[in-house]
Amino acid sequence: MTKDPYQALDAEARVLMASLLEAATHAALAVVRDDGTPSVTRIALSVEKDRAPVTLISDLFLHTKALRAGRPCSVLLGEPGDKGDPLTHPRLTLHCVPKFVTREDAGYGELRDRYLALRPKAKLYVDFADFNFVRFEVKDGLLNAGFGKAYRV
Amino acid sequence: MTKDPYQALDAEARVLMASLLEAATHAALAVVRDDGTPSVTRIALSVEKDRAPVTLISDLFLHTKALRAGRPCSVLLGEPGDKGDPLTHPRLTLHCVPKFVTREDAGYGELRDRYLALRPKAKLYVDFADFNFVRFEVKDGLLNAGFGKAYRV
Repeated sequence: MTKDPYQALDAEARVLMASLLEAATHAALAVVRDDGTPSVTRIALSVEKDRAPVTLISDLFLHTKALRAGRPCSVLLGEPGDKGDPLTHPRLTLHCVPKFVTREDAGYGELRDRYLALRPKAKLYVDFADFNFVRFEVKDGLLNAGFGKAYRV
Repeated sequence: MTKDPYQALDAEARVLMASLLEAATHAALAVVRDDGTPSVTRIALSVEKDRAPVTLISDLFLHTKALRAGRPCSVLLGEPGDKGDPLTHPRLTLHCVPKFVTREDAGYGELRDRYLALRPKAKLYVDFADFNFVRFEVKDGLLNAGFGKAYRV
């Protein structure tokens, strides 16, 4: 093994990354809290047409505070099924900056429609005052396609 | 809803937490990198008899550096299956301090035996020089048992 086990994305890895993004219904979200310690939780996930991940999140949720502060966050997606070795299942780590999309923003209606088309159960709470959409602006990431197959994004 | 949607653990929540820990074969691990930004990845997971989560991790792995530095980290476990709403599936966020268990440590043999009994596939690489066990010393956490059922641990 080399010292840096991560390689540059190739065409096959790009296809895998796109399919992981399209298939993701949920993800693990890591934020840094006020005291500098990390916290990871589960979020619902959808993707916009440009493949930016999007979630719908409540202000009552503890992790929302760090997102509101605009601090960098990280998203892990690509869930293993119930069978096989979870570490051989491909997964994608994204390093992101969170951006709230408010009801006043130009693209809000389109984003809401697309999210609800993909995640119809969210209709129950999408219009609650404490729920908001967050778009994750991806800075870079790591794609792990199984043992010995890791890429920098 | 109240301002703090998190309640104290009750007996039922304790049983749920224990069962999530016992059942976990993998988890999402969040660390804080040198530049203060978080990164979340997937790790294999097992539990010791005292229910402390343990992983076996390579030094080649980017996230290991933050663990080596002893910085606080966070573990999310309790994976949803393929069916149903992932946000109604119970999950546990733990805030931890990582502790490497080296081959010279007193409890190493016992920890190794238990880990391999639970995760036999790890026999392939457990004795590679760059692989080490990390025990997550839990400071506190959050248990989410589904909408409206959240607890402080």
